[in-house]
Amino acid sequence: MRKNVLIVGAGGVAHVVAHKCAMNNDVLGDICIASRTQQKCEAIIESVLRKNHLKDPARKLYARQVDALNVPELVNLIKETKSEMVINVGQSYINMSVLEACIETGAVYMDTAIHEEPDKVCENPPWYANYEWKRRERCAAQGVTAILGIGFDPGVVNAWCALARDEYFDTIDTIDILDVNAGSHGKYFATNFDPEINFREFKKVWTWVDRQWVQQKVHSIRVDYDFPVVGSCPVYLTGHDELHSLSKNIDANSIRFWMGFGDHYLNVFSVLTNIGLTSEKPVKVAEGVEIAPLKMLKALLPDPSSLAPGYTGKTCIGNFIRGTKDNKPREVFIYNTCDHAECYQEVEAQAISYTAGVPAAAAAILVARGDWDVKTMVNVEELPPRPLLNLLDSMGLPTVVSEKPVTFTAPVIEHVASV
Amino acid sequence: MRKNVLIVGAGGVAHVVAHKCAMNNDVLGDICIASRTQQKCEAIIESVLRKNHLKDPARKLYARQVDALNVPELVNLIKETKSEMVINVGQSYINMSVLEACIETGAVYMDTAIHEEPDKVCENPPWYANYEWKRRERCAAQGVTAILGIGFDPGVVNAWCALARDEYFDTIDTIDILDVNAGSHGKYFATNFDPEINFREFKKVWTWVDRQWVQQKVHSIRVDYDFPVVGSCPVYLTGHDELHSLSKNIDANSIRFWMGFGDHYLNVFSVLTNIGLTSEKPVKVAEGVEIAPLKMLKALLPDPSSLAPGYTGKTCIGNFIRGTKDNKPREVFIYNTCDHAECYQEVEAQAISYTAGVPAAAAAILVARGDWDVKTMVNVEELPPRPLLNLLDSMGLPTVVSEKPVTFTAPVIEHVASV
Repeated sequence: MRKNVLIVGAGGVAHVVAHKCAMNNDVLGDICIASRTQQKCEAIIESVLRKNHLKDPARKLYARQVDALNVPELVNLIKETKSEMVINVGQSYINMSVLEACIETGAVYMDTAIHEEPDKVCENPPWYANYEWKRRERCAAQGVTAILGIGFDPGVVNAWCALARDEYFDTIDTIDILDVNAGSHGKYFATNFDPEINFREFKKVWTWVDRQWVQQKVHSIRVDYDFPVVGSCPVYLTGHDELHSLSKNIDANSIRFWMGFGDHYLNVFSVLTNIGLTSEKPVKVAEGVEIAPLKMLKALLPDPSSLAPGYTGKTCIGNFIRGTKDNKPREVFIYNTCDHAECYQEVEAQAISYTAGVPAAAAAILVARGDWDVKTMVNVEELPPRPLLNLLDSMGLPTVVSEKPVTFTAPVIEHVASV
Repeated sequence: MRKNVLIVGAGGVAHVVAHKCAMNNDVLGDICIASRTQQKCEAIIESVLRKNHLKDPARKLYARQVDALNVPELVNLIKETKSEMVINVGQSYINMSVLEACIETGAVYMDTAIHEEPDKVCENPPWYANYEWKRRERCAAQGVTAILGIGFDPGVVNAWCALARDEYFDTIDTIDILDVNAGSHGKYFATNFDPEINFREFKKVWTWVDRQWVQQKVHSIRVDYDFPVVGSCPVYLTGHDELHSLSKNIDANSIRFWMGFGDHYLNVFSVLTNIGLTSEKPVKVAEGVEIAPLKMLKALLPDPSSLAPGYTGKTCIGNFIRGTKDNKPREVFIYNTCDHAECYQEVEAQAISYTAGVPAAAAAILVARGDWDVKTMVNVEELPPRPLLNLLDSMGLPTVVSEKPVTFTAPVIEHVASV
């Protein structure tokens, strides 16, 4: 049994993690939310209390200020708060410092997105080998449980791959992970999470085709797919975290990720990128001030957390998997749909934050119970999937398996030179 | 006779003014180019010398550093350089300080664009009444010649209005000033002059319809016109400097300005504006630095002067004028076409800079000769047009009068509330 959770970060995902942890604090113990800006942590706590989500009022829910790039400061915070589990949902730049603090203190480490260095974008695959897996031996040696990428994608989609492998297929040919937000925030343009991290995803496309890494141009390969519930949506071949562990851990010929974008989104993104506004490289502006264009863009775009109150519509994220079972071809679509307004009603967040945050809270419960306390570093597909999926069924993110899905057909994906 | 020219500014227009003044320095005397950045002035001088454009090598051509917002500094510079004529082709923010220095020293003042205050955009019409005309009495009292807006538009187009009034019409119903750049710079997106000033033009449209100021939405009224030489181009109702003096000085029912924009330009402009990137109001970026988004945009867009070498195609600017002569209806199109590559060949600049800069140099010659040394403040349509137009015929900007033009038909323009 593990007790007491430290949530690092105070954005939209942290908000959802805090709500769901509070709703399970009889299992999880005390909850501390720590971030560079303590005020943002306190706003989350106000939301939790407003919704009356603190299940056991005898357990503490409190805020702390922390510089999450400072390992000794994190170590002190973990010790002082007696946190045995750390859920890191801050900016991707802090992952390795938080992990180091967990290794030093023996606390469980969980995150929802891959580590990034501010000055590097879309490094060579597999991405996990660049930072996370370099620390795997040390986690194993010291019995530290580190669960990488336990949001929705990566996270639940990885568990679905494990489920498919364990229960639905003898051989897997292709896994296509499809992520579409068919909701509307009513703004001219906005990103659903930190624009800085969001746009960094779109610099290059690395995908796993015929057991090789293949590089393609961004937004160059489109498929229109008729999703359950939300209907037909265009999706584009996109690079994404989970391919970088699934390619190693799941025996499949091709594993690809596709993200839904509307024409308006792509037009705006294309203009911004062509002008240079999505660049993380500082430029000199007239007065001699140097600043990254992406920082200016972030300052102008709506704060993702501000989108939640008016958000309507649904997300649909699913794995279309093709292979064989008992020597017969088989296709399944394993998916979840999530309604923005229902999420807001429940926890005052939109569905993008909700789908990423709920699985992390579920994982903390599984670790606290001992189901997932594996004393080493793992990606989600290396863990038994059923405990997570069963728990999520009752926590707001039910899994649906469609045995007769609409077929997803990808065009031939060729390797292109660097873009 | 007036001698010695001080050119304030070192952008694309200043570049052309310097070339054309040097080519006429037997009339104009010594030429000093002064700007905040002396290096930019020296680069212009190198271009003039490279092209062997210094007609009288005994006359000086030299550079100085100046803060053009500092009136005493400007006064000293005018006195020290013994400049009797000042051509102000710096940013629009400096107009009033340069004019003040001219009033104090008695030097002739010329500019090519209206004064603007950094924190105010598209003020109430007529714009000249907000700053320039407030100093008219003082110019008259002290015998200071101040020629406002002597570029192409404003400038030559104002002279064409005077020409039409004097020689082609008894009554004028409508004047439609049409400005199209049918050239190509080969970049994804660029402005042909300072983006900061360029985008400030597009905040509101003030136009003169049935002898009243009418406000319309930006880029909302389009006409496709079959121009001489460059062919059919879309033009959009746009606000522009010259309407703010022509409405007072030319007896016509409606005077409107139309600028050519391609679909790609408008799409990019629309995205940038909707995101907030064309705003001059500073925003706080992540690190606590405050900066105007427009400054960032300017830093990212190509330097307009860098476009010149590869520019192809032509500009066409003309006045379509409808009225009566000898009790009969009459339509004329008075226009000029200018070739980007030919401009570059001659003075190492593109046609947008060329068309704005040559008339200012021509005006300096007319003032030096005494033709235009009127000892008061005037807009160009208040001066005799023939001396300017005859001079421009031989300086690279010939006027063509088409007596049987393709008819330009504007839709009904209604007044809309503030946008």
